[in-house]
Amino acid sequence: MNELKLRHLLQTFLLEDVSDGDVTSESIFPPTEIGAGVFMVKDEGVIAGMQVIEAAFKLINPAITVTFFRQDGDVVSEGEKIAEVRGPIVHLLMGERVILNILQRMSGVATMTDKSIRKLNDSSIRVCDTRKTTPGLRMLEKYAVRVGGGKNHRYGLYDGVMIKDNHIAFAGSIMKAVDVVRQKTGHMVNIEVETETREEVEEAVTAGADIIMFDNRTPEEVSTFVQLVPDHIMTEASGDITLNTLSNYAGTGVNYISLGFLTHYIKALDISMNVKLNV
Amino acid sequence: MNELKLRHLLQTFLLEDVSDGDVTSESIFPPTEIGAGVFMVKDEGVIAGMQVIEAAFKLINPAITVTFFRQDGDVVSEGEKIAEVRGPIVHLLMGERVILNILQRMSGVATMTDKSIRKLNDSSIRVCDTRKTTPGLRMLEKYAVRVGGGKNHRYGLYDGVMIKDNHIAFAGSIMKAVDVVRQKTGHMVNIEVETETREEVEEAVTAGADIIMFDNRTPEEVSTFVQLVPDHIMTEASGDITLNTLSNYAGTGVNYISLGFLTHYIKALDISMNVKLNV
Amino acid sequence: MNELKLRHLLQTFLLEDVSDGDVTSESIFPPTEIGAGVFMVKDEGVIAGMQVIEAAFKLINPAITVTFFRQDGDVVSEGEKIAEVRGPIVHLLMGERVILNILQRMSGVATMTDKSIRKLNDSSIRVCDTRKTTPGLRMLEKYAVRVGGGKNHRYGLYDGVMIKDNHIAFAGSIMKAVDVVRQKTGHMVNIEVETETREEVEEAVTAGADIIMFDNRTPEEVSTFVQLVPDHIMTEASGDITLNTLSNYAGTGVNYISLGFLTHYIKALDISMNVKLNV
Amino acid sequence: MNELKLRHLLQTFLLEDVSDGDVTSESIFPPTEIGAGVFMVKDEGVIAGMQVIEAAFKLINPAITVTFFRQDGDVVSEGEKIAEVRGPIVHLLMGERVILNILQRMSGVATMTDKSIRKLNDSSIRVCDTRKTTPGLRMLEKYAVRVGGGKNHRYGLYDGVMIKDNHIAFAGSIMKAVDVVRQKTGHMVNIEVETETREEVEEAVTAGADIIMFDNRTPEEVSTFVQLVPDHIMTEASGDITLNTLSNYAGTGVNYISLGFLTHYIKALDISMNVKLNV
Amino acid sequence: MNELKLRHLLQTFLLEDVSDGDVTSESIFPPTEIGAGVFMVKDEGVIAGMQVIEAAFKLINPAITVTFFRQDGDVVSEGEKIAEVRGPIVHLLMGERVILNILQRMSGVATMTDKSIRKLNDSSIRVCDTRKTTPGLRMLEKYAVRVGGGKNHRYGLYDGVMIKDNHIAFAGSIMKAVDVVRQKTGHMVNIEVETETREEVEEAVTAGADIIMFDNRTPEEVSTFVQLVPDHIMTEASGDITLNTLSNYAGTGVNYISLGFLTHYIKALDISMNVKLNV
Amino acid sequence: MNELKLRHLLQTFLLEDVSDGDVTSESIFPPTEIGAGVFMVKDEGVIAGMQVIEAAFKLINPAITVTFFRQDGDVVSEGEKIAEVRGPIVHLLMGERVILNILQRMSGVATMTDKSIRKLNDSSIRVCDTRKTTPGLRMLEKYAVRVGGGKNHRYGLYDGVMIKDNHIAFAGSIMKAVDVVRQKTGHMVNIEVETETREEVEEAVTAGADIIMFDNRTPEEVSTFVQLVPDHIMTEASGDITLNTLSNYAGTGVNYISLGFLTHYIKALDISMNVKLNV
Repeated sequence: MNELKLRHLLQTFLLEDVSDGDVTSESIFPPTEIGAGVFMVKDEGVIAGMQVIEAAFKLINPAITVTFFRQDGDVVSEGEKIAEVRGPIVHLLMGERVILNILQRMSGVATMTDKSIRKLNDSSIRVCDTRKTTPGLRMLEKYAVRVGGGKNHRYGLYDGVMIKDNHIAFAGSIMKAVDVVRQKTGHMVNIEVETETREEVEEAVTAGADIIMFDNRTPEEVSTFVQLVPDHIMTEASGDITLNTLSNYAGTGVNYISLGFLTHYIKALDISMNVKLNV
Repeated sequence: MNELKLRHLLQTFLLEDVSDGDVTSESIFPPTEIGAGVFMVKDEGVIAGMQVIEAAFKLINPAITVTFFRQDGDVVSEGEKIAEVRGPIVHLLMGERVILNILQRMSGVATMTDKSIRKLNDSSIRVCDTRKTTPGLRMLEKYAVRVGGGKNHRYGLYDGVMIKDNHIAFAGSIMKAVDVVRQKTGHMVNIEVETETREEVEEAVTAGADIIMFDNRTPEEVSTFVQLVPDHIMTEASGDITLNTLSNYAGTGVNYISLGFLTHYIKALDISMNVKLNV
Repeated sequence: MNELKLRHLLQTFLLEDVSDGDVTSESIFPPTEIGAGVFMVKDEGVIAGMQVIEAAFKLINPAITVTFFRQDGDVVSEGEKIAEVRGPIVHLLMGERVILNILQRMSGVATMTDKSIRKLNDSSIRVCDTRKTTPGLRMLEKYAVRVGGGKNHRYGLYDGVMIKDNHIAFAGSIMKAVDVVRQKTGHMVNIEVETETREEVEEAVTAGADIIMFDNRTPEEVSTFVQLVPDHIMTEASGDITLNTLSNYAGTGVNYISLGFLTHYIKALDISMNVKLNV
Repeated sequence: MNELKLRHLLQTFLLEDVSDGDVTSESIFPPTEIGAGVFMVKDEGVIAGMQVIEAAFKLINPAITVTFFRQDGDVVSEGEKIAEVRGPIVHLLMGERVILNILQRMSGVATMTDKSIRKLNDSSIRVCDTRKTTPGLRMLEKYAVRVGGGKNHRYGLYDGVMIKDNHIAFAGSIMKAVDVVRQKTGHMVNIEVETETREEVEEAVTAGADIIMFDNRTPEEVSTFVQLVPDHIMTEASGDITLNTLSNYAGTGVNYISLGFLTHYIKALDISMNVKLNV
Repeated sequence: MNELKLRHLLQTFLLEDVSDGDVTSESIFPPTEIGAGVFMVKDEGVIAGMQVIEAAFKLINPAITVTFFRQDGDVVSEGEKIAEVRGPIVHLLMGERVILNILQRMSGVATMTDKSIRKLNDSSIRVCDTRKTTPGLRMLEKYAVRVGGGKNHRYGLYDGVMIKDNHIAFAGSIMKAVDVVRQKTGHMVNIEVETETREEVEEAVTAGADIIMFDNRTPEEVSTFVQLVPDHIMTEASGDITLNTLSNYAGTGVNYISLGFLTHYIKALDISMNVKLNV
Repeated sequence: MNELKLRHLLQTFLLEDVSDGDVTSESIFPPTEIGAGVFMVKDEGVIAGMQVIEAAFKLINPAITVTFFRQDGDVVSEGEKIAEVRGPIVHLLMGERVILNILQRMSGVATMTDKSIRKLNDSSIRVCDTRKTTPGLRMLEKYAVRVGGGKNHRYGLYDGVMIKDNHIAFAGSIMKAVDVVRQKTGHMVNIEVETETREEVEEAVTAGADIIMFDNRTPEEVSTFVQLVPDHIMTEASGDITLNTLSNYAGTGVNYISLGFLTHYIKALDISMNVKLNV
């Protein structure tokens, strides 16, 4: 993650929650009163986003210190202490909620990714994300997918080609669609083609697609289609695959399975920050 | 919702996904090719965020037209068409994913709120949200809670006082904490006090709190505590209440139940945009 | 005040004045030449905004040091030294004007607030501000009002309800207006109703308003109207009250008097920064 | 004024006041309810900033229409109608306060400028502003000074040279200070030198200053110093001149008098927007 | 190009040049005075960036109309009229310089790209750009390279992998570097490896690089190295190739030649906007 | 240069190149791996923009240290080491390209300016820039012109008056144009008039222009026109003067020659950053 961009995001998020100030804590605590905050996990999962704690608190007050007991990717369980911060209590309370909101969501995504990989239980297949991320949080959620052991699909419309049914319909054929896109893009951009039938898969191979996606196909279809694709072309299964049906795709030989639910069905991992006075 | 702020958010979200351009669609479709996009619901729920469709597409191209078949708060079911847009296909595809990402999440929040209210099944108690919203999306999620029939708790640290255990510990007592905050805030700001015991509830009443929260209390405790509070002071139950335990709080007489999961356990409502060429 | 937001404001203000650079001082002083700057008050008043000095200079150059001799809320008189800064002269001169422009205005607001309270001379009535603040400076001016001993009314359209004549006319009655707003807002939001007659006051009481404002009423009317309102509802006098007429409202028993002139009739408190070379 | 920059400023100011929405009006008025707003002057003065009305309302809703009855620079008196707007009431009320806050301040500045010029009553001397403007509002206030008949001094540190005592002290002499600055600046940048004594004025003339300022000088001194300066060099009186002492400078022959109070002692001109329903 | 991003860039650029306003034209022309502006080419080249004309003028004033006589990619010669705009003269003059500055640079880049392709004179080799673009203008310059017939290399550090000598040194070998990167990136990201020797080329092939770059190699070396690389791996020649030496690489069989000078040696194409009054 | 503005620009430029992160280096180097980077010049020229190195790296990571061996304005030759930085390698590589892109362009501008001055070889004439700068980089390029020994013309439309043919045509005459502008501008703003004939020069003198520009005139015409202008009015030659024709203007007695090519014909000075591991 680019920390410069992270700081920019955190500033926006902190202003959303704090705006002109914390009317409660600023009334009660003098600015010089020092305390500590202990980040505790209250559920089992994979932790992701630890650098958010430091980056956010440093934005608020560079004098706040952070000690880490765990790092991104660690499997944590209830009651574990993952970090401790120390500084003016007004500043600790000012950042608490925003940091937890991010850390919990990122850890939720990492946990879901890890769970999916374990459900799939086929290390020859890589699990990856989609563009179905939370608006404004794509960098954070894509990072969390990686922390959870997954891979990233393209970041946006700008950095990878995905030829879908409408593109094919307008171009006239998969062949023509791939050709026209290849004419306009450079060698660093991969071209993926969505297919649903054997004929489409074969045409995509002939067209020289870099990746062929099998859209909404059963595990059996995926197994069959994979055979049609030479080794140097990557394959991907996608569409309506759930945590429950995922294991059916084990052994299909497909290279990637992309899962929208990694980021659009977010259950925040429960984490709290316990404040200690008189430290 | 403030549309000026909405447009600002949407611009940020569109730039995140599109950045320098859509390398696929810009290669295939000429900028003048017109098409239509039909928004279809693929699951049952409460729709929220319809104005996002119009606001986002107008940002991309003011010439895009939008027709609505449903409005915010409508209960929709699988296969329902909720809106149709018409304009250059490159622009429809450019906005598609971002709009769906927002609309699905907002509808997910509204659906969860609606579901909670039906589970609770006690119209004398209002369900409300918390500050556990997705960073950057608070305005959108708080709006969705209202669409789903819920109420909004404070928007942030700046617009309402919440006196918690640390504040009380430092101030010396609930009484002292309420007093010092009252000295520093005006008459438009309500003061809420978190309590866990009968003694604390009684002290909060004496201190003149505007709202008394019963934190992590059983339905029985809530029923008992409510009796201690005069009518002009609002009561709120909060903490670890789930969709499963919610109905236990029916009949307790509490005024509000705040539920973090409305916004930190988001299951996007499945909605798609089907593009039609040659329209 | 939220220092993160303060820094953001100061950056905007400094760029407005300095833009591409200080053509005079950068031509004369080498960047390494160190000097001191002494902030002197040249008139009597209440000082507000001292943290602006430090925040602005730290933005320009984190190595600049600041020593404070006075703090916000102090009554100061001509010739008093309130702070001293030390660092590269080019940086001291770069921040001087912007810092003084803010500090003088904030101190002017605090001074006017303090003066109003002394004119009123009735400690049972609280003086508060309005939304008639300088665009872009609301956080700073509302803070200055508090420093001067006043209270803040709502921060904006988003954090408090004010039902005025147009709302009442459209809703049909005060009762209906309060009802419809109460349906849509949560328990942290207070509802204030503007009234002009005895009947309106009585209706507002019945409607359950949290605050009742007596708009443009004479001190006698205010005294009478206050009697109609039970203790748990706050009362506020507002409209066309000047520094000259303020004392007439002493003894009326009203809880709050809101004064637009605190922030829309700003006489900057005269403060200068004297630069010393060869320190 | 640059309308592009104006729109940017207005967006910031509207977000400050409205943030997530107008909780009162959005609860009461349906978004389709149309009304009118009449801008009325409630005091005598010079109006400035009329384009703010249109620019702000167009930002909120491009469908709002504006009719002007007066224009910038007009002398208006109590009860005069200066503009009328028409559009959704929620949008009229959303913009009302921010627009009035700006329009009142700008008109206050124009009125004060006009008043100063009439007090001075010597058309051979031009009245001008300083850098003592409200942070964030410099473009608006400098424009208002022009509307009131005044002139603008430099816009900031970047577009004009002002050599003060510290610069002279460090450079060694006025001559040396002017020389070093002239070496580093181009032909579009004028150099002004602050002087207090006859010797300094003479040295500034010799040094080839473009403008010579007489800082904190009596009318008599100004008259004398003006004689020392050849015609092609502009002269300026500055420092501690008030509305009361201004007329003493009539007849001194100085070219410019700069007045900080034009923008740091702002008395907003009273203007209201009366909303009409059922139009 | 993403027009939403283009408008954002143009707003920044216009504010840089215009800031608070055009002191000359606003003094002379009344805002209602209409005129025309004719864009004329004064040199031979390839035109790129025509949409900048419309986007910039629409930002300034949506009522300005634009007529195009030429389009991006057209080869134009001295004296050709490429577009005409019509609207208030103050607005035409306000946008003139900024639009020309962009249009001239973009056309300069397109012209240089076109020239390079003609110099190379081998249509089997594609010419592409690098990351040596002007800061802030990457989207515009990369677009201009495409208009000139070239291809885009990666957009930034985020969307493509380039393994250079330092990466290889730290990883231990090309093989190890490719492996570790492949572990962390998904299937949409291509991996390019910089090589200088036959051994490195062979190792990169074995490592499964997607693209192999021959860094600072002579045409002869390029010809030889190309033979070592199987067809499904792309090859690229890079480093110190100038317009003069480019033709030596014709016939080498390499797939791509990347040229830094396309964007870091910019000779603006001379284009003017002639304003006509009284139209 | 204003470092606050510089940091703002650098943040934008770094985000353009790095966006969500450096996929190559972050995969290979652990964040704690320390290295050094040596900035070497690979061509002869004048160095400008050294503070960019420090400002950019401090934005990325305040712990990076910078040592300078040369300073702005130094003439450097191939192989010279101008600066060395030390810090985490991922951070050094993250900033490398953006810093070089800026430093090379700024040094290119300074080198071209220096070259022009040497070509002209008449120290009584000052070389200056125009508004034909790269959009977004004006502050940097105008600074580079100064470093190269040149002067800055006006910064934009806002800080200096330039009366051109259209202004004169509309106003009716040079006299009228100067008069109307002088009425609206203050004493810090200089007025320049473009002229092409003896009659226009004479009229500009009579009108009291501060600067008279001879537009597209031969050296002989310039010599003649200069005689018509009294000493206290500056003269400027402009238009279609190239590096080749520049020396013809030596001895004409004109005060300034403005050269668009200083900034719109940019040949980046070749500078590299060599990374050293295991330092």
